[in-house]
Parts: sequence; structure tokens; C-alpha cells
Amino acid sequence: MGTVMKGAEVAKEMKETLIREANELKEKGIDPCLAIIRVGARSADLSYERGAKKRMELAGIACKVVELSEDITQEEFEEEFQKVNQDPEVHGILLFRPLPKHLNEEKIKNIIHPFKDVDCMSPVNLAKVFSGDDSGFAPCTPEAVIKMLEHYGISLCGKKVTVVGRSMVVGRPLSMLLLKRHATITICHTRTKDLEKVCREADILIAAAGKPRMITGDMAKENAVIVDVGINVDEEGRMCGDVDFESLAEKAAFITPVPGGVGGVTTSILAAHVLRGAKYLNGISKE
Amino acid sequence: MGTVMKGAEVAKEMKETLIREANELKEKGIDPCLAIIRVGARSADLSYERGAKKRMELAGIACKVVELSEDITQEEFEEEFQKVNQDPEVHGILLFRPLPKHLNEEKIKNIIHPFKDVDCMSPVNLAKVFSGDDSGFAPCTPEAVIKMLEHYGISLCGKKVTVVGRSMVVGRPLSMLLLKRHATITICHTRTKDLEKVCREADILIAAAGKPRMITGDMAKENAVIVDVGINVDEEGRMCGDVDFESLAEKAAFITPVPGGVGGVTTSILAAHVLRGAKYLNGISKE
Repeated sequence: MGTVMKGAEVAKEMKETLIREANELKEKGIDPCLAIIRVGARSADLSYERGAKKRMELAGIACKVVELSEDITQEEFEEEFQKVNQDPEVHGILLFRPLPKHLNEEKIKNIIHPFKDVDCMSPVNLAKVFSGDDSGFAPCTPEAVIKMLEHYGISLCGKKVTVVGRSMVVGRPLSMLLLKRHATITICHTRTKDLEKVCREADILIAAAGKPRMITGDMAKENAVIVDVGINVDEEGRMCGDVDFESLAEKAAFITPVPGGVGGVTTSILAAHVLRGAKYLNGISKE
Repeated sequence: MGTVMKGAEVAKEMKETLIREANELKEKGIDPCLAIIRVGARSADLSYERGAKKRMELAGIACKVVELSEDITQEEFEEEFQKVNQDPEVHGILLFRPLPKHLNEEKIKNIIHPFKDVDCMSPVNLAKVFSGDDSGFAPCTPEAVIKMLEHYGISLCGKKVTVVGRSMVVGRPLSMLLLKRHATITICHTRTKDLEKVCREADILIAAAGKPRMITGDMAKENAVIVDVGINVDEEGRMCGDVDFESLAEKAAFITPVPGGVGGVTTSILAAHVLRGAKYLNGISKE
């Protein structure tokens, strides 16, 4: 049985640093604050919101939720967004997406202050992730994957890493973060031929496809490192990842469970981003 | 012997469309115009400039060169840049890079009008390339590679494509353009272990590493498609690519030469971008 990589352990390790940094800001008269903007009340958003609020509280970061009606107009939405965006007491903005279809998300991406863009919506931060410039904010989930691997002492330099999934939330930005750390990356997706073979070649296999238990026992080589970014609900209504944990835990050198894996690190990354945003906005540290 | 893919043939095919589109703009009273901004006089820049001027002339696109002294100050440079950037008669800007070290390139990237950014410096266009949104401008060379493959009827969907090189000029943006076309992409670089093996697995192998003839006969599988983006000068002062053409031409199904390959398509892509920029700027076509 390989080592099970636990999100809670990584979050625990990060906690002290977050508290210390939040305190350092408070000593300077800055009260770090995250604003969560939620349109409507999807259950997945509410669940993440609870986790984020709890994490901010543990770190000593304020958290305010701006809850908006699903039938808000574009004009009203932009007005509400700008209030938060221009509020000097807010240091990070988390906007739940996708927005309802009648709202223009593109416009918001171009409006958000890059220093407050703690989950990487703005082209400025996306371009930085793309080019390997880590002065910006990467999306929280891909960065959580990197943090998890670092915590467990798994080096990336020269490793063959296969990422299954090419979304802008995980697959693509994660590939760029891995490339920056000198991994040889392969990006797979629904059109990939012979996915099994490509996965079996990987030293590190990362599943971010959003398909329940699609990575099965024969799809990884012996002693591979397996990271599961999927969050799905199976036919029996249970939460599960993209990896069939049961059939892979034995042969993997390291593996993350779902729940209890990468998802447990994401809000800690979010907290770290809010603190960094507060420093940028107050000129304490430079981009 | 595989089919030699010739840049001149692709450029020839594109020529009629470019001329027609330039004429359509002129009939609307718009005189499409590229501005080239060059600081100093590096020989590689001068050589590309000659090619670009000739291509614009053939297409019926005006081309003006703004030549600036190597010791220009940041302030003066920004002023000159803004003149061109704000000139309603200019529809595309090609700035030779890297700039001399005392000049701040980052600032210019954020200043350039995204519609005039025909070689993809701005975060807006970079983020679009990253996310697979083709309403922006990709850098010309990666797009020339795609055009070359399309011209020779080489499909990308589901193909294993290995890109050697991870620069922001070729490797990374090209990988995103390939991903958009549903290729399974692998990005290799100096830290990649067992490069030979990774290259041999590719259906399509693209060399963009900037190392003379580094891709040798044993590094591609039988009937691979080989695209050489390298432009190097060998020890004897001759221009050569990253691919050892002699040892690979026999086994490849398709292969590009250097010179005479991808390089011959780049300025045609630049011309197409200027025309598209002119349409965007005049509200003729939407982003």
C-alpha cells in the first residue's frame, strides 16, 4: 500500500505560517479580508463557501459574503462587483463561476483588480501562469496540487507527468506550474487515443477530468505517484474522485484520496493568496 | 523520402486571400498598415524586417518602420510607442524583442492595444491563446506551424504531438494551439529525461529548442511528421534548423526544411493579423 497523501496534513503545516502572516499584517494596521461573491445558491458553492469561511477564520482572515440574486441584471452585478473591487478593505475576491448565462463573465475578468484576483480570472494573472511568472496568482486548485507534492517530498524536475484534463480551472494552469518546475508534461483529454498507455508512462499521474473513477488499476505504472483532483458524485450519491482508489492504492507509491486529498489544501492556498494580495495592495511586498 | 513541406507553397496559397481582404478594406476607405518598431539594428531583426516589408507589399498592406536609437530612454521610448499605438492609421504593431536591457518591456506589453498586438505581447492575447479563445492574436510562428500542417492535410485530432522547447515565443503557445485542435501534447525541454524516447513516441514531432541539428535520425519514429522551427547558424556559418534534415528526411512522412520551411509562412500570418486588426479596430468584424 502506497503512502496516502492527506490534504489535512498539508493544511496543518500551512496553518502556522498563515496565522503568523495575518498577524504581521494586523500589526501594521491591515486587517486581511476575503470577499466571496456568490450569485444564487448552488449547493457546491455553498459547500466550498463554508470551507473557505472556516479556513479564513482559523488563519485570522476576515471573510465577507456578498450574496446576489440569480436574476440580477448585468448593470447591477457590475455595480456590486465594483463596490468590492474598489473597497480598500478587501484584499481578495472569490467569485463563484460559472455565472448565470445572462451575465457577462468576460467583462468581470477584465475589471477585477489583478492584486485581488486570488483565484486567477484576470488575463493578467492567466498570462503570468502561462509564462511561468509566479508573481501573479495561479488558480487555487492547481497550486494545491503542487503544494501537496512538495509537502510529500516528491520532486518534479525531469519527471514525466501526465495530466488528464485540459480545463482552465485545473488541467492547463497546472500543466504550466509543472512545466515551471521542469517536469516533462503530457496533457490528455477526451480525444486522446490510447489513454491507458499514455497514463502508464507517467511517473506522476494527475486526474482532473471530472469523470467518476475513470482512472483504473491498469492505467498507472508500478510505484507511480497519483493525484486525484476530481470531485464527483457517484451513482449511489457518494463523493468520489476521478481515480479508482481501491484498485490503485496498492501499486502507487503515493496517492491522494477523495475526499480528504487535494480539496483540503485549496482553501489554505486561497488564504495565502489573500495575504499576498493584502501585501501587494499595501505596497508591503512587490509583485 | 518523405514529402518536404515548403513554406513558399503555403505563403502562395495565402497570398490571394490576403490581397482580396486588403482590397476589401481599401474599398471601405481603410488603408491597412503595419508599423514595425525597431530599437537598434540587429542583423536578425533587419533580415526579418526585409521579409515582412516585402510580404506586406505583396499583399497590398502599407508598412512603416520606426527606427529608434539603442540608447533611447524609457520615457522617450514609451512616447514613441504610444504615438504608433494611438495612431488610427496603424492596424498592427511588430516590436522587435528583446529590447535593450535598460528598457522596461513589461510596461509596453500592458500598454499595447490588444487589437494592434499582432505578435501576441499583451496579457490579453496571451490569456486568449492559453484558454483556446482564437479571437485574439497568437504569436506568428506557432500559428505558421498550424497553417503548414493544415495546408499539407495533416490532422491533429487525437494525434500524439511532442513539442521540444518551452519558450513563450513558440513552445508554449504552439502547445496550446495544438491542444485546441485536440492533439495530445507533450512538452519537452532541457531537463527532460530520455528525450529520444519521448520524441520517438510522437506522431508529430516539433522542434523549437534553438539547438542546431539536435533532433537526429534515431529520435523520430518511422513515418512521423517532423516540423522544424529552429533557425540557427552552424559552425560553418550556414543557416540550419533544430532537425538534422539529412538523417530524418528518409524516414519521415512529412518534414520541413530550414531554410524554406515554417519561416516562409510567418510573415503571411503577420499580414493576416494586420488585416484582422484593421477589421477589429474599425468595427467591421467582432473579436
